[in-house]
Order: sequence, then C-alpha cells, then structure tokens
Amino acid sequence: MSAEQFDFPAAVRTDLPPPASQWNGFPAFNFVGGHNAPESIPVDDLIAAATAVLQREGATLATYKLESGGLGYKPLRDFLVGKLKRHAGIECSADEILLTSGSLQGMDLINEVLLRPGDTIVIEEANYGGVLSRCRRLGVNMVGVPGDEDGMDMDALERVLDELATAGTPPRYIYTIPTIQNPTATIMSLERRQRMVALAKAHGVPIFEDECYSDLIWDGVRPPAVYAVDDSARTVFLGTFSKSIAPALRVGYVVAPANFLSQLCACKTDAGSGALEQMVLGEYCPQHFDDHVARLNGLLKEKCDVLMEALAEHFGTAAEFNSPKGGIFLWVKFPQQVDTTRLVQIANAESVAVNPGMEWSIEGSDAARAIRICYANPSTDTLRRGVAQLAEICNREFGIPTHIANVDRS
Amino acid sequence: MSAEQFDFPAAVRTDLPPPASQWNGFPAFNFVGGHNAPESIPVDDLIAAATAVLQREGATLATYKLESGGLGYKPLRDFLVGKLKRHAGIECSADEILLTSGSLQGMDLINEVLLRPGDTIVIEEANYGGVLSRCRRLGVNMVGVPGDEDGMDMDALERVLDELATAGTPPRYIYTIPTIQNPTATIMSLERRQRMVALAKAHGVPIFEDECYSDLIWDGVRPPAVYAVDDSARTVFLGTFSKSIAPALRVGYVVAPANFLSQLCACKTDAGSGALEQMVLGEYCPQHFDDHVARLNGLLKEKCDVLMEALAEHFGTAAEFNSPKGGIFLWVKFPQQVDTTRLVQIANAESVAVNPGMEWSIEGSDAARAIRICYANPSTDTLRRGVAQLAEICNREFGIPTHIANVDRS
Repeated sequence: MSAEQFDFPAAVRTDLPPPASQWNGFPAFNFVGGHNAPESIPVDDLIAAATAVLQREGATLATYKLESGGLGYKPLRDFLVGKLKRHAGIECSADEILLTSGSLQGMDLINEVLLRPGDTIVIEEANYGGVLSRCRRLGVNMVGVPGDEDGMDMDALERVLDELATAGTPPRYIYTIPTIQNPTATIMSLERRQRMVALAKAHGVPIFEDECYSDLIWDGVRPPAVYAVDDSARTVFLGTFSKSIAPALRVGYVVAPANFLSQLCACKTDAGSGALEQMVLGEYCPQHFDDHVARLNGLLKEKCDVLMEALAEHFGTAAEFNSPKGGIFLWVKFPQQVDTTRLVQIANAESVAVNPGMEWSIEGSDAARAIRICYANPSTDTLRRGVAQLAEICNREFGIPTHIANVDRS
Repeated sequence: MSAEQFDFPAAVRTDLPPPASQWNGFPAFNFVGGHNAPESIPVDDLIAAATAVLQREGATLATYKLESGGLGYKPLRDFLVGKLKRHAGIECSADEILLTSGSLQGMDLINEVLLRPGDTIVIEEANYGGVLSRCRRLGVNMVGVPGDEDGMDMDALERVLDELATAGTPPRYIYTIPTIQNPTATIMSLERRQRMVALAKAHGVPIFEDECYSDLIWDGVRPPAVYAVDDSARTVFLGTFSKSIAPALRVGYVVAPANFLSQLCACKTDAGSGALEQMVLGEYCPQHFDDHVARLNGLLKEKCDVLMEALAEHFGTAAEFNSPKGGIFLWVKFPQQVDTTRLVQIANAESVAVNPGMEWSIEGSDAARAIRICYANPSTDTLRRGVAQLAEICNREFGIPTHIANVDRS
C-alpha cells in the first residue's frame, strides 16, 4: 500500500508560470528559436581547441572559476577586448567584461540590479519575447518606441522620455537591440545611436544595449556600438557567442563600467559559469572567429534568400517584409484579416512552428498580423516546404494568399 | 574634455550585496571553497570524451538544449538513473531529473518556486554558507536543528516542527545535507532518515535533500538517500558533479516528482545549461565515474589524514574534530577564548584562508570558536605548512595552542 503522495502543485508559489509540458522533440518545420545551422558548427576546430586547452590547463578545472576569478576565463575576456574594438569600436579592458552563462544570465543580472516591481523601462515596441516575458514577471512597466528601417525612431523616443519625466516615472533604462533588431532585423544608424546617447544624457538614464545578433551582418559593415559612441559611461553592453558559434554553448558577456560590473559580479552567486565552454571558446576564437563568422554569414544569407523566394512564391504580395542585412529571422506581415495568433496555433498543430507577432511585441496593431520566421536551422528544402505548408494553412483559414504558386484559390 | 560619467552606484537597487572587489588570485594557503585536487582531474579521459561526443554529435550544438529538451542532455540523465539507483537507492526515470548549471542553480530554482519573503525553513544549525546567505537575501527565517555524529537530532527536529506548528508558521521545507554534512562531515543514520520522513509526513512538509558531497565517502558505504526512503514523494534531491569530477564544470541535477520538476523547468528560463559540459560528462561517466571516484576518495583520505596529523602536531588538544568518513573539509573547534571571526581576518591577511564558523552556522555558541578547513585542493606540503602558520597566528593572538610542535609557548 503506497502512502499518500505530497501535493507539490498546492505547495508552490501562486505567482509562477504554468508548469512546463513534456518535450516531444522539435516540430518538422522548426522556424522558431535562435537555433543555428547544424552544418555551420565547426566541430573539428572545437575538438582541436578542447584538446589543446585541456592538455595545457585541464587541471585548473579543480578550482571554481579556474584561475580567473569571478569575471570569467581571462583568455576569452582578452580575446573579447580585441574583438569588441575591431567590430564594435569599443575600447575596454578585460576587467570591464563579465562572462555569463549565456547572455540571458547577463540580462537577468542587469535586471536584478536595476529593476524593482513597478519600475518603468523604455524599449523598441516590437521586441524579443524573452525580454517581454521577463519584464512582465518582474512587474515592470514597458513603454514601447516605434521604429523604421534605421531602427528606433528618436523623435518618438524623445517624446516618450519627456512624457515619462512629466509623469514622474522616469525609466530605469532604455533597452535597445540596435544591430539586427529582434524581430525586425534592422540596423540603427550611427546618427540615431548618437542621438540616443544625447537623449539618455539629457534625461539621466542609462542604456542597456543588447547586441546578441550583431556579428551576423552579411557584408560585415557594422556601425560602432552605442557603448562606443557614449562618452558618459552610461551604457551596459550585452553580447553572446550563441549566434556566432553555437547556441547550446552558454557563453555570453556583459561589458560595463567597472562601478556597475562589480555590482553584477556580487549578484552572480553561481560559483562561476561553465568553465569548459569558456576554455574551448578562449582557445578557438583567437584563431578562427572572424573566418568562421564570415563563412556563417554566407550560409545564413543563402538561407534568407531561399526563405524570401519561397514567401514570394507562395504568398505573393500577401507577405510584406524588408530584405534583412543580417541575422537569422524575418519579420513578416500579412493583410489585416490574418490573425497570426490563431494562424500560429493551427500551424503548430500541423508541425509548422513560427512565432506569433503578439508574443514578439508590446503593442497590438501591426503585431497581430505579423509572424517571426527563423531560418538558420532548417535546410533550404525544409524552408521551402514549410513556407508552402504555411501558405496552405493560411489560405484555408483566412483566404490569404488568394493565389498559391500561381494557382488561384479564391 | 570628457563628459560627466553616469553614477551607476546611485542607480542600483539599495538592497544588494556590496560590490565585488577585484580578484587578485588565490591565497598561498587556500583552505576555503569546495575546490578539488588538481591532480585528480581526469584530463586525458575528458579529452577522449570531448573528442568522441563532439565527433558524433557536435552538430547538435546548433540547437538550444541540443536534442534533449529542457531537462538537459538525455544520455547524462540516463547515466544518473543508474548511478542514483546503485549509489543512493533511488528509483527514478530520466524524466524526473533536471540538469542544472551547478547544484546552486537547482537550489535557486527550488527556492524560487517554494519560498516567499517571511517564510520559514528548518535546517541543520551548522550549515553551508551559501545556503545561509541565499536565504538571508530572500528574507527567509531559518530555524536551526542541532546534530551529532549521526546527523540531525530527530528529537530536536520534532520539537522544532511542533513549535512552528503551534506558532502558525510551519516551515516551507526541511533542508538537510544528510551525507557528509557541510561543515560537520557527518553521515545521517538510516534510522534518522526514516524518522525525518515520518516527521515530515506528520507535519505535511516537504524535504529538500542536498547530497552534493555524498559520492565522497572513503569506504563507499552510503545509506540510501532520504529520497529513497520517502514513500510519499515529498523529497526533492539535489546532486552535482562538482565534487566528484570537477568544480569548474557547472553541472548539477535535481531529482523530484514530475509534478514539481515541471514547475522548476518552467522557471528555468536560461535557454538551457551549458551543453558541452553535459555532453562530455554524458560520455565520460558511464565508462569512468565509479573508478574515478574510488581513486579520488583514496587521494582525499590521504590529504585528510595529513591535515589531521598536522592539526594534532601543531594544535595538540586545542583543536577538536571528528575524523570524517569522507568529504573535503574538516570542522575544527578551538577553546572558548579563540574568536575565529577575528582569527580568520588576521590569518587571511597573512595568506591563510579558512572559513570562520559564524559564516557556516546560524547559531553562535560553538560556531564562534569553530573554523572549516578545506583540504582537497592544497598539496600535503601546503596543508602542513598552512596549519603550522595558522597555529603561529592563533598562538600569537589568543595564546592557543600553548605549545606548538612540542615547544612550550606559554
């Protein structure tokens, strides 16, 4: 006779997200998530790096944080000092870089240090779902700023900052993804970066710059980071190796003035981020990073082109999008009558997974007819077939597109 | 002319721990922290495991969480199913195991799901400093239970539970480190484990069992886990590879009933724990874990013996301790006049680092004259010289020991 089982669901806090459901593998058409191309993973070079660094320094795994202290593996921070200068115009020392367990841990630490329930932040109105869900759980009020092909609209930002000042609720920070914005894939112009800094200065507000996609630009031309154009040390920069090397390697980094980084470091009570991943990247990157990213961008651009072709073929003019300059996703808008929240539900049930716009935006108008399609992971063939299937579903449910592959369905 | 710099220290929350100070390397006599023996790290076998698993599955690094879902790398969970049965008497499936970024992430998730500010928990009164500091930050009230060589005193636990029930503040959980308790290195007897479960049942309270040191027992004889003797599914089990393989590899695990694990999983919003470390352990452990741990225990016992000899030599009867059955630390008590908080401050300044008892206990009496000495990382020579130096300092400051190495200092 078995004893009565403890009722855990009744014992947990009542303000939690719903329990996770069992994982049953990826859908056949997996167009969500920041996954990368399996064929891009530099397996042989990672093996060589792991072998070399473990042969040389394997015994240091015996100490928490290796022999580098709380900021993370020093050779990888040294690589980043050069990389950030070369790619983003950032001048910093290795002591102004904190390595984290993915950029999300960096984001959580920044929020832990700066945000209280009831606080306000300013963000681009179409935005990364992970930011929106985090801030909602923290009880933080998000005020959206629209943008266009050059990124966040600075006149709109000025208005928002003025309104919040008048209301006595100045934001705790301005959050921006200036380079390959998620989900719009836009790149903020240099002029707007400079104006953002000027506005932040005028309002005494810090800037939280999330640059997780900025390595993935087809032509490699990238404006300096906001961090680099800010001469007032009010910007905190977040980066990652998830997009440039491999998502499953959980290595991100925060670049910040020392008087802020030391506070993040005090709150990072995890006894260190995974050392092996830091060591392997510390060994791999100085030799291979730039070449690898150039190759990866070629591959991603090819997939992006296939996706855009397939959308044009199957949706025609019913699918609006801008040709992106980089990244791994496309932000696609359909005519008004397409409710993408419902479309995504139905498509999911038929093994086509895309992100509904409403989960990727804090405002409703355009987002309700938008979806985000991630194209890095699927093969080009899977991309083509998935888009065809999505068009079938959308036509069946919403009568959009009216023509599929030049066949009139209306 | 440089612009005015943003005042980050004025912008952060006011309830944070003080900023971290710069890391300047380990002290010469580093007897703190759960570090392991550098000579124990199985470098060649880890290289072989990394090579094999990356050759076979390296391309799966392109997807967040590999192809295993939110619970973590499936082959490592499969290994744990067998290991937990063999070593701890636990019957569970791979779906009742959540891999985490070190056991501390597991602890944070459990606390996030179960604790609110003002809640009460019951714990062993001498305890891991990381638990005490976490619960203080969470605003949780900790009620201590004393113990002896057989672990937590169950009569005392019964009294505490009764008192808390009467006061209308039942604990959210009973936290215990039953096997190689930190810092006392005691092993709770099977009878006490059974009685703990009976008491927990009677009071409707869950048990949080932290078994991070339980692989490190000299003779390998280990009672079944509390999880294994609990027939009411009220126990959550926390384990780690930090102590058995390498601290810098951040891989821990939670074993829990599915109705609780799914809630932890929903709160684990980190896009997965580091995959490479999970993959390497998943490849290494099935072949090598048991043999490696047997060798490691031989090495640790040798160091423990050296430490105890050195304490006997330099402190004589002034140092009280029980000969431990395993682990990596010794809990040492000095005569009443030794204020170990002050001793540790002075010793730190002279490059001898040990943990003061007051940071490793929630009650003051004995703890104020106790220290924790971690012996896994230093060489035997460093252990001997460090203890000699600590005795010099203690004699100089407190007149204890009165004799050092058979020379009368009084």
